[in-house]
Amino acid sequence: MYRTKNCGELRISDVGQQVTLSGWIQKSRDLGGLTFTDVRDRYGITQLVFNMDENQVLCEKARKLGREFVIQASGIVRERSSKNASRPTGDIEIEVTELNILNESKVPPFTIEDETDGGDDIRMNYRYLDLRRNPVQQNIIFRSKLALETRKYLDSQGFIEVETPFLIKSTPEGARDFVVPSRLNPGQFYALPQSPQTFKQILMVAGLDKYFQIVKCFRDEDLRADRQPEFTQIDCEMSFVHIEDILNTFEGLTKHLFKNTLGTDLPDFPRMSYDEALQKYGSDKPDLRFGMPFYELNDKAKGKDFSIFDQAELIVGFVAEGIAESYSNSNMKELTEWVQRPQIGAKGLVYVKWMEDDTIKSTIGKFYDDDTLKSWISAMGGKKGDVVFILSGETDRTRKQLSELRLEMGRRLNLIQPGDFKPLWVIDFPLLEWDEDSQRFHAMHHPFTSPKKEDIPRMLNGDHETMKSLRADAYDLVINGAEIGGGSIRIHDRALQSKNFDLLGFSKEEAEYQFGFLMGAFEYGAPPHGGIAFGFDRLCAVMNGQSSIRDFIAFPKNNQGRDMMIDAPSLIHEHQLAECRIALVKDLDKK
Amino acid sequence: MYRTKNCGELRISDVGQQVTLSGWIQKSRDLGGLTFTDVRDRYGITQLVFNMDENQVLCEKARKLGREFVIQASGIVRERSSKNASRPTGDIEIEVTELNILNESKVPPFTIEDETDGGDDIRMNYRYLDLRRNPVQQNIIFRSKLALETRKYLDSQGFIEVETPFLIKSTPEGARDFVVPSRLNPGQFYALPQSPQTFKQILMVAGLDKYFQIVKCFRDEDLRADRQPEFTQIDCEMSFVHIEDILNTFEGLTKHLFKNTLGTDLPDFPRMSYDEALQKYGSDKPDLRFGMPFYELNDKAKGKDFSIFDQAELIVGFVAEGIAESYSNSNMKELTEWVQRPQIGAKGLVYVKWMEDDTIKSTIGKFYDDDTLKSWISAMGGKKGDVVFILSGETDRTRKQLSELRLEMGRRLNLIQPGDFKPLWVIDFPLLEWDEDSQRFHAMHHPFTSPKKEDIPRMLNGDHETMKSLRADAYDLVINGAEIGGGSIRIHDRALQSKNFDLLGFSKEEAEYQFGFLMGAFEYGAPPHGGIAFGFDRLCAVMNGQSSIRDFIAFPKNNQGRDMMIDAPSLIHEHQLAECRIALVKDLDKK
Repeated sequence: MYRTKNCGELRISDVGQQVTLSGWIQKSRDLGGLTFTDVRDRYGITQLVFNMDENQVLCEKARKLGREFVIQASGIVRERSSKNASRPTGDIEIEVTELNILNESKVPPFTIEDETDGGDDIRMNYRYLDLRRNPVQQNIIFRSKLALETRKYLDSQGFIEVETPFLIKSTPEGARDFVVPSRLNPGQFYALPQSPQTFKQILMVAGLDKYFQIVKCFRDEDLRADRQPEFTQIDCEMSFVHIEDILNTFEGLTKHLFKNTLGTDLPDFPRMSYDEALQKYGSDKPDLRFGMPFYELNDKAKGKDFSIFDQAELIVGFVAEGIAESYSNSNMKELTEWVQRPQIGAKGLVYVKWMEDDTIKSTIGKFYDDDTLKSWISAMGGKKGDVVFILSGETDRTRKQLSELRLEMGRRLNLIQPGDFKPLWVIDFPLLEWDEDSQRFHAMHHPFTSPKKEDIPRMLNGDHETMKSLRADAYDLVINGAEIGGGSIRIHDRALQSKNFDLLGFSKEEAEYQFGFLMGAFEYGAPPHGGIAFGFDRLCAVMNGQSSIRDFIAFPKNNQGRDMMIDAPSLIHEHQLAECRIALVKDLDKK
Repeated sequence: MYRTKNCGELRISDVGQQVTLSGWIQKSRDLGGLTFTDVRDRYGITQLVFNMDENQVLCEKARKLGREFVIQASGIVRERSSKNASRPTGDIEIEVTELNILNESKVPPFTIEDETDGGDDIRMNYRYLDLRRNPVQQNIIFRSKLALETRKYLDSQGFIEVETPFLIKSTPEGARDFVVPSRLNPGQFYALPQSPQTFKQILMVAGLDKYFQIVKCFRDEDLRADRQPEFTQIDCEMSFVHIEDILNTFEGLTKHLFKNTLGTDLPDFPRMSYDEALQKYGSDKPDLRFGMPFYELNDKAKGKDFSIFDQAELIVGFVAEGIAESYSNSNMKELTEWVQRPQIGAKGLVYVKWMEDDTIKSTIGKFYDDDTLKSWISAMGGKKGDVVFILSGETDRTRKQLSELRLEMGRRLNLIQPGDFKPLWVIDFPLLEWDEDSQRFHAMHHPFTSPKKEDIPRMLNGDHETMKSLRADAYDLVINGAEIGGGSIRIHDRALQSKNFDLLGFSKEEAEYQFGFLMGAFEYGAPPHGGIAFGFDRLCAVMNGQSSIRDFIAFPKNNQGRDMMIDAPSLIHEHQLAECRIALVKDLDKK
């Protein structure tokens, strides 16, 4: 090794030791006859000291070191006269007797500090420099630890990690596949997996009993902020299980991960049905770090000649505590404009303020007297000093809009405590979702999800309307308003799977071509089974209270799917195209 | 759960317990009033018993169970009257009181037994049934355990697992890339990584210090037996290391893996230079489980009017012990034909037998007297009763041929003990390999490998012949004649890397286009670093004394790169091609 110690481990008890360190120059200060140089590696920062009186040649060499030079320094550990309590090595310094420059560095295009002066693009271009910054490096180290703890826990529970293939078959339903031309099979293509779904089910048919894998998945989507074309899942499947077994197992995993990486003890996770989540929070991934549940006002508000409410399918609101006095008319105007932005799309915002002098100020004071409005606030759990926000209109849309407003008010009122985690199981999802545009059903989870046992007869014999009311044995793990994981009990019966493909608009031929192997497997003793997949990038981010998954990926792509550091994708050689027996359409256009 | 116990855990101490098991029907026997049914899961096999006298309905239901039906059975654990000592559960059986059929099964197309009657193709088609067989399942479980132990060990040594991207840039040098058209960047392609080589070096530049990853890699090669288009590596890199540090670290890993999966204590690994390996065993991956080292006879055999030897660049042989009497003329004839097969390509085989009556029988008796030949045998470490095999010709080719013969004799003479492991570090590889066909140098390891420090001046200033003699800081881990891992100290200096690209025939533009990001990174403080990659599939196979990696991959592809179970690759929809802005050449040919 080029070192005997790293830059993070020396303490006062090491004083007097002869050591060799290697690392990067963080910064240097010349103070009269002394030069102090901070040298940095993954483990920490240690101060080197050079004395012009004692060794002029060495000290002059040290004074020429630039930022990010790589050096090797040997010397004696000394106690510092002015200690630095903010640094674990802050009690000592190295009196250097030998210095080698292992590599030089140009001046980096941004500062390698916790808070850098570099913009997004330049940091993506020079990812290797950005990764030297401590917060980014800690994210990557956290991710590694989280993966290892995941594996240790699942191993302790009898799970086997099985690698499923990356070169699989394209299934044009759902999200878009990345395709890979096969040179050995001209005209044919592999696809990169959007998830190992069918393979993990096959592993259950194969009797593996408990499978997991931390695995890259691929989706060729138009990239929105914080989507990546390649992302990582903790992918799991179990045989001979009911829904309870899966929820318990993966609640156990989640608690283990929080405990063993953050030291956080999570309480048992509450469960909430999909219907209740929508009714109470307008979302199937409610953020429970703060309250403000919804209250439906149809019974109270209709029939009082306020035509907007009378015509609305749903009138729903929530209480914001204690802001009746502090939220001025202009605050309310600004908030109204906020909900009217196209991203939210509400027509307007109704509010009712219960002032400290016991009066009511409201946008709907003309239609309802003060006592009525006070009775609403009381019924909704509010009191004097509170404000109620109300939206109305078509049910789904209104809930979604009010959910956005609730989240915004949570942020504005600082109701979210850093380090607070509120996990939740959302259960009892609908099996199918009717899509008006394409006039067909979509699978709410995916086509392999089982209806609830009691709903199977209705699924096999029901009419169109019945199908809309079918419930699935599907569940999501939500933490702090983010969907962390989702899964289901799967269909393990060929006839039921076939029926589901019918409902989803697959022809017999399509179903057979794409998923014949799985339906075939179901004929050879498929056990009851179910599973879950966690979004690993998202889990990393949520556990660290951050919103962007990109900060937890060593080499993320930008919003155009481009790796800016290596400049990929790129043009390829003509002979590569020819070998794959493909041509570029733009080249054809030219001809 | 559909069970309270699994099929492998019940023992005599559980007698009297009420239990529920779930699993697959292995087989049934009707013996008079009793039906015995073996039920199987991942954990083992348990015998169920049904009594016609006590419960006729249940017993008749049991008699209708076919092989591979999935059942759930509840009952009482009883001591067996005739115990089965070969099975951990052999002391007990379950007196069944309740039986549910969870799923039926068609008759499987081959038997689900350790030794099956199914051929390769049908087992690939029905991989989910093949995976139910215990030896295959144990392979997959072994692989999972090996991966976990790898991670635990490397974590204990301070390594961070970092996921590198799968959608990267095509580098047309070396093996062929699989390419992936980018829909968002029409006309441009990603490539799937052949290894994360440049990314792990970038991580060293980024200061991650110790990186590893168990990662899929991709090579679009014409598939030979036991090559897979996707394969798995344990990929590692360390900063501030010399070659010793890497060998010690990964010798430690290898010992840990053998100890913690097989219970085998490996001794310290011997080291052998590339030159010595070729000289002594004719191979850079010698199998040291048996002896028979080579002995060069040029000095002794030339100048005795035997023109074949006189004209040969190399005359080399080895001693096969104790077979002078047992190996007949016809054995020798057959062996001669064996080395003359095109796969080996020797012109003929010289042998010298030292018979028990002290006479010599040899194909070259005309040219050398008995005492001379005896003196050869003695010099080669042989004695009366032994045979010496000799080949001659051009050095490289002759060594290769004799190496094949040595391996064959090792097999024929049963010199390989099952469970014997002989690891070895091969070091001091040449840096460059001259390719006569293309009239250019190839990197023996890869273009990022550093020459030995003492060879750098010769590399920077030497002539063509000098380049052939440069040694690299490269090393291979060989176990039982299989290359398990390989790596090197890397170049971390832009000028030296640039010189290496020159030598390898890259133009400045090509080098910059393909690897500019890495050379750029070297300008911002790249630390000295090096690493290694283990072939994980191969390691699994070698540790289990098996020759095929396919048996350790859950879903392998066949020799045409095809997944026979899912039938991939396959045709894709026109709209998928159109979205990627590509067309099939065969479609163009038609137009």
